[in-house]
Amino acid sequence: MAPVKVFGPAMSTNVARVLVCLEEVGAEYEVVNIDFQAKEHKSPEHLARNPFGQIPAFQDGDVVLFESRAISKYVLRKFKSPKADLLREGNLKEAAMVDVWTEVEAHQYNPALSPVVYECLINPAMRGIPTDQVVVEESLEKLRKVLEVYEARLAKHAYLAGDFLSFADLNHFPYTFYFMATPHASLFDSYPHVKAWWERLMARPSMKKLGATMAPKP
Amino acid sequence: MAPVKVFGPAMSTNVARVLVCLEEVGAEYEVVNIDFQAKEHKSPEHLARNPFGQIPAFQDGDVVLFESRAISKYVLRKFKSPKADLLREGNLKEAAMVDVWTEVEAHQYNPALSPVVYECLINPAMRGIPTDQVVVEESLEKLRKVLEVYEARLAKHAYLAGDFLSFADLNHFPYTFYFMATPHASLFDSYPHVKAWWERLMARPSMKKLGATMAPKP
Repeated sequence: MAPVKVFGPAMSTNVARVLVCLEEVGAEYEVVNIDFQAKEHKSPEHLARNPFGQIPAFQDGDVVLFESRAISKYVLRKFKSPKADLLREGNLKEAAMVDVWTEVEAHQYNPALSPVVYECLINPAMRGIPTDQVVVEESLEKLRKVLEVYEARLAKHAYLAGDFLSFADLNHFPYTFYFMATPHASLFDSYPHVKAWWERLMARPSMKKLGATMAPKP
Repeated sequence: MAPVKVFGPAMSTNVARVLVCLEEVGAEYEVVNIDFQAKEHKSPEHLARNPFGQIPAFQDGDVVLFESRAISKYVLRKFKSPKADLLREGNLKEAAMVDVWTEVEAHQYNPALSPVVYECLINPAMRGIPTDQVVVEESLEKLRKVLEVYEARLAKHAYLAGDFLSFADLNHFPYTFYFMATPHASLFDSYPHVKAWWERLMARPSMKKLGATMAPKP
């Protein structure tokens, strides 16, 4: 079986979302860089993969996909094994809890946490834009409320969807990884169950490996 | 089998997202109103259903869920039939296309279209806030680019994920329904395949029925 292809820089958060899934299921893959400076993301070749001209895109033979969460689920379904069943689609209730906390990441956690990553890391380091402290403070305030809910959840279960690792947890990896490189990483110290959950995730070979290629800057 | 319960006002877009799925699979359900003025969404009973104090929430016996897209998928899995297989999880490639266009709705279409609904309908009618024309114009500009991609897609296929109705299409119902009540509805006239797709959707009994309870104001 030819390795699947992921198009986009490996250090991009949305590319890393796909890569952590590929690592968890042990699939062979190849990362094909997309050169933004050369506008490769707007080339006809790339627009055929992703009509919005964004990254990542994905290819597995004649299957061509875009949108990181959709690609990730394809990967988790295709390479599912008894050791790595991260969507739990065979179990109605477990699959629902995976979906609930996957949506929570997209609609609650990420909108609160990602602006801190943009303001403290991406804007100053890659775009020459200074940090907007007002945005940072507002986002941290939202994030505290989200982390209170996570703390209550993770006090009851080892992982977000229940007492099993799932796609819901993996989804938190890329942005949280970069958040931990901002001056606000210590916020997690106030939420001991969240902190322990994050450390449990970061001890996984998949996240250790990807973290090494992503660090220290987004 | 007792009817499932959906908590939240039926005219809310995120509640309607769940209801259209329930209608499509022919499941029995009960809508339990949540009184925002009485702060019922922040009551201990509701926070036990949704720790973020939002709507909708959902109950099916001992299964209690929140996040409209997660609830919808539970409904489509549980009540799946040969006539209504709207996630296509049994087919790796079709399921992937359903996921791609479901994510496109969440991350491309809705962020462009929903501000027009808020500015033109919800803010003036329900919140006493006048329409911000700058936000409207910026959103319409984004929406045009999104609709160009949709036009190309729907010129090739009757529905977004392919030549079959899926969750990806249903997801577009609530916000597009309200968009069609704004002064900008005619934007769709420039995209004939998108317009025909929307009319095909609105001819469905599920959307006709829900539209009647949602109209004319959000």
